[in-house]
Amino acid sequence: MKVYFTFEPRPDLRDPLVDEFPEVEFTFHSRPDKGHLRETDVLVTYGEDLNDESIEIAKNLKWIFVVSAGIEKMPHQAIHNRGILVSNVRGIHKKPMAESILAHILSIKRALPFIYENQSKGVWNKKAQLSELNGSTALIIGPGAIGAEIGRLLQAFEVYTIGCNRSGDDAPFMNETHKIENLMSILPKAEIVISMLPSTPETKHLLTYEHFKQMSKDTIFLNFGRGDVVATDLLIRILEEKLIRHAVLDVFEIEPLQADSKLWKFDNVTVSPHFSSHSSRYVERSLDIFKPSLRKWLNGDENLDNKLDILRGY
Amino acid sequence: MKVYFTFEPRPDLRDPLVDEFPEVEFTFHSRPDKGHLRETDVLVTYGEDLNDESIEIAKNLKWIFVVSAGIEKMPHQAIHNRGILVSNVRGIHKKPMAESILAHILSIKRALPFIYENQSKGVWNKKAQLSELNGSTALIIGPGAIGAEIGRLLQAFEVYTIGCNRSGDDAPFMNETHKIENLMSILPKAEIVISMLPSTPETKHLLTYEHFKQMSKDTIFLNFGRGDVVATDLLIRILEEKLIRHAVLDVFEIEPLQADSKLWKFDNVTVSPHFSSHSSRYVERSLDIFKPSLRKWLNGDENLDNKLDILRGY
Repeated sequence: MKVYFTFEPRPDLRDPLVDEFPEVEFTFHSRPDKGHLRETDVLVTYGEDLNDESIEIAKNLKWIFVVSAGIEKMPHQAIHNRGILVSNVRGIHKKPMAESILAHILSIKRALPFIYENQSKGVWNKKAQLSELNGSTALIIGPGAIGAEIGRLLQAFEVYTIGCNRSGDDAPFMNETHKIENLMSILPKAEIVISMLPSTPETKHLLTYEHFKQMSKDTIFLNFGRGDVVATDLLIRILEEKLIRHAVLDVFEIEPLQADSKLWKFDNVTVSPHFSSHSSRYVERSLDIFKPSLRKWLNGDENLDNKLDILRGY
Repeated sequence: MKVYFTFEPRPDLRDPLVDEFPEVEFTFHSRPDKGHLRETDVLVTYGEDLNDESIEIAKNLKWIFVVSAGIEKMPHQAIHNRGILVSNVRGIHKKPMAESILAHILSIKRALPFIYENQSKGVWNKKAQLSELNGSTALIIGPGAIGAEIGRLLQAFEVYTIGCNRSGDDAPFMNETHKIENLMSILPKAEIVISMLPSTPETKHLLTYEHFKQMSKDTIFLNFGRGDVVATDLLIRILEEKLIRHAVLDVFEIEPLQADSKLWKFDNVTVSPHFSSHSSRYVERSLDIFKPSLRKWLNGDENLDNKLDILRGY
């Protein structure tokens, strides 16, 4: 049984794994190597280093464990055709992402960019308008596992949370939940609007100019789902017209964001390079999910946690 | 009955106050004017605009309502000698200050300064080490009302909270509490150390080089109490020697921090201009505390909330 990691965990994480599974031959190599691919039974990857050819070469491959939530860059059809099982680290992002979102909201409310700028100039300046998160209302569009964690933290700050999802069914840590088709009428109630929507045909360019017109001018809009929920040109227009107070963007229609994009330059935008799920504890947490799955696999049990349909995308 | 505010609340806050107390003659004037002082019965002030002479002039003055927690800049002896009652807005700071502290900790953990810097250069750069607040241990030295609010929020992030106070008695939202004389042995356990200590003879220069030596190199130290708990020279030495990861300072021995202070220049320090209690909702909240006290006062009841001993300082 050969397990091939296309990245190299730190020794303090790798060694206990190797020790725990003496029956497994592990290879750790930070690039998908054809020789290793040819022989591997199980592939552990961030999901961005595979193509149709890799799948063709990997004749023995039966299971891909993706150390990521997004699988957009994987060769879906080739994996599906071979009937390779795919599972991922669903849920691993929720704590670091929710912390990033809280960090950005609190930073704006408590004037951290102002503090940093004045420090860099060596100026003692108290003339900022510091506001509070406490008592705000937040709308979370697409409140899945990550949205629930965001809701949980926001509620600790006594924020009223509104969820918006397809069904309109109650979602955890949301004070109320509505159907996404009622979005337009809910937007004026929230001064924090967070999109956690994935990229699907239904969510592409879902947010329109009219949606942003409905928001209050004090709104902080955060996109930590996928970039194509708003067209880039529309986003630029909204920021130019100052329809909202601030946009915090961790995702973009085209990534990396192009060097000449206007988005870099606005005062009322924060450009985060799609890394808000990163965490120094990420690999540790991934291996905590991987190990029980590998144990099951070795016991011939293919009913792994977080299995996904590669064509459907979740 | 004359009530004199030495600041001017926004009309939407001032007008309801005036309407609620038709029997009171209010004056709002952003500077302590001798003519008004001479006639006032009640003074509402931020506590930084009075001296011995003001108290002498204000012959009718019987109650000073201080819209602040700190009363260091008030003429203590003159107020005491006249037997003027002093009350303040104790507790008003806890929500905005706790939010500022969370903002700073999360900003460092989730690499916001790195994000802002790369955005200003127009560079898409994911090469930051993002860590998590989740699962950390925090030590709060002097956990009063503000410390409890900090503890409450930290616990929402699954942080283990340790309080350190004079008595060692249990404090709210602290997983454990110790006597301050045991500080040295507790310091290695926490990677977040927050001082909320007031300035008193016992707290002056309480933190020594040895204390910082006890902290882990990853420690984030935050001082949001009073600046003289650490000598400025010592703080500079600690930052130069990189004994800790980062210091976030909202208070300083001398304020404003001198333009030529070395503290402005360190990468591992954040200089905040002693305004972390500021909030756009501050006056609103102050008036919410003031109104019931004024009602009592008009009814001849001098047993006001948040009365304090001007000489003792709390």
